[in-house]
Amino acid sequence: MLLLREINPDVRKMKVSEQEILERRAVEIRVEIEQGIAKPYKELIDVSSGNPQGMGIRPLTFVRQVLATCLYPSLMHDDSLPLDVRQRAQRLLGECEGGSLGSYPAIYGIKQVRHTISAFITRRDGFASDPDNIAITSGSQHALMLLLKLLVKGEGSQQTGVLTPVPCYRSFNKALVAQGAVSVPYYLCEEQDWTVQIQELRRALHAARGHCNPMVLYVINPGNPSGHVQSKASIEEVIRFAAEEGLFLLADEVYQSCVFGDDSEFHSYKKVLSEMGPPFSSNMELASFHSISKGFMGECGLRCGYVEMVNLDPLVMHYAHTLFSTNASAPVPGQITLDVMTNPPQPGEPSYALYAQEVQSIRSAIMNNVQRILDVVSGLPGMTCQPIKGGIFAFLRLHLSQAAMKHAKEKELDPDLLYSLRLLEETGLCVAPGCELRQKKGTHHIRICLATPQDTMEDVLQRLKSFHLRFIKEFP
Amino acid sequence: MLLLREINPDVRKMKVSEQEILERRAVEIRVEIEQGIAKPYKELIDVSSGNPQGMGIRPLTFVRQVLATCLYPSLMHDDSLPLDVRQRAQRLLGECEGGSLGSYPAIYGIKQVRHTISAFITRRDGFASDPDNIAITSGSQHALMLLLKLLVKGEGSQQTGVLTPVPCYRSFNKALVAQGAVSVPYYLCEEQDWTVQIQELRRALHAARGHCNPMVLYVINPGNPSGHVQSKASIEEVIRFAAEEGLFLLADEVYQSCVFGDDSEFHSYKKVLSEMGPPFSSNMELASFHSISKGFMGECGLRCGYVEMVNLDPLVMHYAHTLFSTNASAPVPGQITLDVMTNPPQPGEPSYALYAQEVQSIRSAIMNNVQRILDVVSGLPGMTCQPIKGGIFAFLRLHLSQAAMKHAKEKELDPDLLYSLRLLEETGLCVAPGCELRQKKGTHHIRICLATPQDTMEDVLQRLKSFHLRFIKEFP
Repeated sequence: MLLLREINPDVRKMKVSEQEILERRAVEIRVEIEQGIAKPYKELIDVSSGNPQGMGIRPLTFVRQVLATCLYPSLMHDDSLPLDVRQRAQRLLGECEGGSLGSYPAIYGIKQVRHTISAFITRRDGFASDPDNIAITSGSQHALMLLLKLLVKGEGSQQTGVLTPVPCYRSFNKALVAQGAVSVPYYLCEEQDWTVQIQELRRALHAARGHCNPMVLYVINPGNPSGHVQSKASIEEVIRFAAEEGLFLLADEVYQSCVFGDDSEFHSYKKVLSEMGPPFSSNMELASFHSISKGFMGECGLRCGYVEMVNLDPLVMHYAHTLFSTNASAPVPGQITLDVMTNPPQPGEPSYALYAQEVQSIRSAIMNNVQRILDVVSGLPGMTCQPIKGGIFAFLRLHLSQAAMKHAKEKELDPDLLYSLRLLEETGLCVAPGCELRQKKGTHHIRICLATPQDTMEDVLQRLKSFHLRFIKEFP
Repeated sequence: MLLLREINPDVRKMKVSEQEILERRAVEIRVEIEQGIAKPYKELIDVSSGNPQGMGIRPLTFVRQVLATCLYPSLMHDDSLPLDVRQRAQRLLGECEGGSLGSYPAIYGIKQVRHTISAFITRRDGFASDPDNIAITSGSQHALMLLLKLLVKGEGSQQTGVLTPVPCYRSFNKALVAQGAVSVPYYLCEEQDWTVQIQELRRALHAARGHCNPMVLYVINPGNPSGHVQSKASIEEVIRFAAEEGLFLLADEVYQSCVFGDDSEFHSYKKVLSEMGPPFSSNMELASFHSISKGFMGECGLRCGYVEMVNLDPLVMHYAHTLFSTNASAPVPGQITLDVMTNPPQPGEPSYALYAQEVQSIRSAIMNNVQRILDVVSGLPGMTCQPIKGGIFAFLRLHLSQAAMKHAKEKELDPDLLYSLRLLEETGLCVAPGCELRQKKGTHHIRICLATPQDTMEDVLQRLKSFHLRFIKEFP
């Protein structure tokens, strides 16, 4: 029998995460509720991950009508479906071999969908995007994995290091371990709204040299979990730093449509790079990621995203292509959804009004939730939150007492994991503990997803508030 | 700029395949036809890969009706859809968080779908299958990749070796390279209908020891491209061999529903293992793969499959779970299709008759194509084919003349690649050359997919026949 010591050591380094302890308990609690075991709440609410439709956000009608028609083309004759739905389905089916969604798509994704994406980027940035630089994958995380696979190599002090923000959502850190990369943490400055600071990037880089070979800089903008949206000036600084240090930039921009602050605007790394002109625009290597799971689509279950790769050496690009081709193509329903996301119904088209209204309604719900959580937190002792300018998360800081810390130590749990487990147990609310997303030593947080219907958020806030007040009373 | 020499050396080892030369030319020819450039044929026919719907095989109505209803639940009220479609959709939506296909499914796949699959395996084998051993992934290839990632490690003589059949479809060999495994070829015996021979497995294993650390045995049954279906006795022999040598068995059984020979029957490795009793049934580590892309579903575009892992050490299983969890969950439309594939409409249910008729019609088309290609080949000089008992491919042997070989040498091309390029250029028929799938030295083959409508196959055979006769006349 294959023994544990015989498996790939990189896989063995992957540890059971703190959140999995919570997740397992959440699963158990759901079962207990089904079995009729009495709880002080009727149902569990899980805001630990970004899963909008799982939380009750409804999918966009146009997306689903197009998908249904593509999958079951008899609907093409159903007059109750808007004309632009049927036209879109017809066009997209025409782009599938054999006229069917069930045929293998081209390796980098359906050609015309890649063209739609590149036209979207060109409109967004005001600079041309080359469809040949775009690869459609089974989600942005899958694309990130493949880029890491391409870039990561070596052992010991030659092992590729990846500068990674702290805090950062957990699956990225897991992916680094799985690919055998060294995570080089750089700390976002919580006190200054979670900004990226160049001196901190420099500190992290210099501290890492000698231990590993830092070659890659990973940024998330808008931030997850931070909720920060980078200014154009900040992006320029980051690009200059990466250029000076010869780093490959991985820009996770999956929340680009979710920017809420009045004074905030999304600037893509590609756009800023292009505006900076040569040598940056011609030399800086950048991969930017986007996804149908995030933003207003929230189609996490369809598993699709894309990456645009800029300024890669053609020989490296060739191997990127080879690597992507081995990892099979992205699911076609997701590709159809990408087409809609990057080319939504336009004014004058039959589905425009409903589409715009549904997007606005989701946007309003998230903005309302942002305001509500900030309001509630500002009234709570022992809890603070930086402004939330974008993304779909609130990352709340817990200011825990010495008594609470001592109790956590006795229980051998990270203090925010203890807090989260108690919160789950007592109120049925499941959040992500900060220890899972990494944080500055001595600080404690919880992350809450804000892409929920407004009434759900009220329920979330009530549970959080009542628990928090009890908790700080218990550990004064 | 990142130079080629700086990327992951395992990725650099991935070479452009022969078939990509063909594929690129096929893409060009399609464009040339669109541009109106005169060709001796109206359209290109690509039978180089297993892409049934791309070839014109129609999807199963029930599958697509269920998918459309799940994606656009307003159809739940559409009386023109059969009741069992709407009931199935209702049940499956109830198994998705938030009642939506757009929510993240559980990591190993939707729990109830995993139960459906395990019930299917239990019925198929007559032995219990544990749903906890089943993981749903983005296709069987993805599951294979993850298993390889778990198993492969080491450098030099300690690098994990994987016993791999020759011939074998190409993406498996690419995956081995990408994971840093050593491919240890064992040759199937063409003269004896492509059977697996134990003395050949033993030869391959012993030849590899010292060069690498052979730990894994990969089998494909029914065979791709061989068309062979293993007998129960043969599977028993393979299991005994793997047990003696301490090998981990990876059984690719994606064509299990496609068995055509009168005297052939599909036996799963799991079933044979179970029948053999202890110590085999209790100790032999086996991972068996299945997919919605193959067989009568042919839903390649929906990207979904599953793996059943048997007799893994619980600690190893734990890391398999962690690894799978990092690689995100499978697309939900594919999971819905898996549910239908493993639990199709039953007699008495409204959709049964149509479903059964559609499956039968695809089955008849493939069986007819098998018979037709064997008939045509038997009448052609310089071409032979072993009996085709299962799968969806014919692997035709080319007996080329010295003149043809000399010509290929001058052109610096593998002889069957030269043959395939000429076949493509002159008749618009795209096949897979044997050099791409590996073959015994000095032998030459082409692979043709048989999952096509019957009239397409007639066209394929006509193009093949006329070209082949010209070719052997040109190189007598």
